[in-house]
Amino acid sequence: MSKIRDVASRAGVSTSTVSNVLNGRSDRMAKETLARVEAAIAELKYRPNSTARQLKTGYTPLIGLLVPSMANPMYGFIAREIETLAQERYGFRIMIGNTYRDRDKETRFFDDLLAHGVRGVIIISSLVDEQHVEAAAARGLVVVSYDRRATPGVKSIIDHVTVDSFESARLATQHLIAHGHTRLAFVTPVGRTMSRNEKISGFLAAAKNAGLEGSAQVIEGIPVDEYGDSMMSELGRMQASLLAKSPLRPTGVVGVNDLMAFGLMAGFRDAGLSVPEDVSVIGIDNVFLSTLMHPAMTSVRLPVPEMAQVMVERVMARLADPALPTAEFIFQPSLMERDSVTTCKPKK
Amino acid sequence: MSKIRDVASRAGVSTSTVSNVLNGRSDRMAKETLARVEAAIAELKYRPNSTARQLKTGYTPLIGLLVPSMANPMYGFIAREIETLAQERYGFRIMIGNTYRDRDKETRFFDDLLAHGVRGVIIISSLVDEQHVEAAAARGLVVVSYDRRATPGVKSIIDHVTVDSFESARLATQHLIAHGHTRLAFVTPVGRTMSRNEKISGFLAAAKNAGLEGSAQVIEGIPVDEYGDSMMSELGRMQASLLAKSPLRPTGVVGVNDLMAFGLMAGFRDAGLSVPEDVSVIGIDNVFLSTLMHPAMTSVRLPVPEMAQVMVERVMARLADPALPTAEFIFQPSLMERDSVTTCKPKK
Repeated sequence: MSKIRDVASRAGVSTSTVSNVLNGRSDRMAKETLARVEAAIAELKYRPNSTARQLKTGYTPLIGLLVPSMANPMYGFIAREIETLAQERYGFRIMIGNTYRDRDKETRFFDDLLAHGVRGVIIISSLVDEQHVEAAAARGLVVVSYDRRATPGVKSIIDHVTVDSFESARLATQHLIAHGHTRLAFVTPVGRTMSRNEKISGFLAAAKNAGLEGSAQVIEGIPVDEYGDSMMSELGRMQASLLAKSPLRPTGVVGVNDLMAFGLMAGFRDAGLSVPEDVSVIGIDNVFLSTLMHPAMTSVRLPVPEMAQVMVERVMARLADPALPTAEFIFQPSLMERDSVTTCKPKK
Repeated sequence: MSKIRDVASRAGVSTSTVSNVLNGRSDRMAKETLARVEAAIAELKYRPNSTARQLKTGYTPLIGLLVPSMANPMYGFIAREIETLAQERYGFRIMIGNTYRDRDKETRFFDDLLAHGVRGVIIISSLVDEQHVEAAAARGLVVVSYDRRATPGVKSIIDHVTVDSFESARLATQHLIAHGHTRLAFVTPVGRTMSRNEKISGFLAAAKNAGLEGSAQVIEGIPVDEYGDSMMSELGRMQASLLAKSPLRPTGVVGVNDLMAFGLMAGFRDAGLSVPEDVSVIGIDNVFLSTLMHPAMTSVRLPVPEMAQVMVERVMARLADPALPTAEFIFQPSLMERDSVTTCKPKK
């Protein structure tokens, strides 16, 4: 089994430099040095001794990860990226839980993490009120909150990592407008998360900017947080069947996420409409399944690997240095054009 | 916070009966009693004190869960079922890892579980050689292996929980044959798992039974264990484009799993063929996304919630009673008919 000095020797650095990398203290390190150390760790399959580390640090080498539902392919993708990085780079394992965006379930998970000696946690939730998350941080957890910004005007003791959700929906809507669509809809479960609220704002801003505020509607369906996967698509399917019958049927529809948009496409088909000939549909998330839809679905890509890396690095850096100030990391989305959006043809 | 005597009182049983339920010793309990205790636990939101339990039992209330990749929707679904049950019924959390069916990664995870004081583990892998898994059990882990049978003729100290994979493929193939298909194909990555081998046997047995062994081909593509999600579909897409060009193109194709079959459907479309008019496609797993495909995809259902329950119960029961003999639990699959299979029309 490789030792830390083997890694140092292979990378041509001191053991304390390797230790800095392992403990997330690489901010001020030259990129090239960091890359060399990481390569040496990988080549030698070096893994820190977790028991010795725990005795020294006082916490166990685990990161808590709260997801709404592991059965949702987007969260599965993010969880895989987080777990792989935490494990391969830092030798940390993941304690995971499905919390369905339920405040009580989230709080009980925080309790259990503390009881298990875990000090670092990543929470995917985006609930508008995250006082219970701040409270967990006040009890000693290093918390990174994913999929929402910091609450404006409130001093936060947790990190926030998110894509710009306003921009995700604005991009999607602008894409429909650029294809001549004037009757627009944005479909979401009843909004209780910050990211959903921001997406609604982005949709409405794009419509207003094109003078279409009179023909852009936000459709809020039943709440589906509790399930988070098949229920999301089923809601989309149901909403599409309702939209298909409405007298001023929209020709361009944005789903709050890809699962919703998959359901919308299926629901419009059920109603005898063609996608994209009769109605263009666009999703947000760009899960790999989008390319397998028929037609392949246009979506907005979130930079998941990049965000996962920042989340893990922030947990490690703040475990190493609790005095590090918290921060907000906002990533930009990008449009992935496929075949579910086409130019709007005016009815004769 | 509720105490164990509150649960006992609400259920009208003794505290030791509640304790038996919590510790997986409910084999000989009347079903009705078990149901009453479970209802009381749920109503009172009772959660055992994990620290006290650990001091008493010598292990931490965590279950290790090894999955090939969390980004694969099928494993995400199974993981969610396992986590929810372990947590809600037993107060156990889940330590999870992506092991990509890599024997070394699996072995390192076992090492880490032991180092963390974890004694119960569920491994989803199905590697033909599972000596490293038996070795982990010999070191003190209570192991449940999912998606494969016990190795014939070998005395095993781990439990095996699986669907009957031979029957899954046989059912799918028989369904194509019943629709008049005589040129058949089964598409899989290069087979290194027991479940894949059994599926191939089930496919060939169905073909032989119908006298079609001369026109049934097994297509083994590149290995894709390392990725397990988008790569599986991409392989299906590529194989379909090759099959579409072959002179004796099959009219009925079985994918080793739904992701493969999603890719097959997309690949046949890419080649200008219609599903199911030109080629019928059927998957195995019945992930919820099957219903969202166009056409909705026929698949073979695996009883995931039922299997997850047995896996968690076995871990808990054997933690409570290490002398319990290990066993094999084989579940039966069922066909979910949708729109991707139709009657074969003979070419003029």
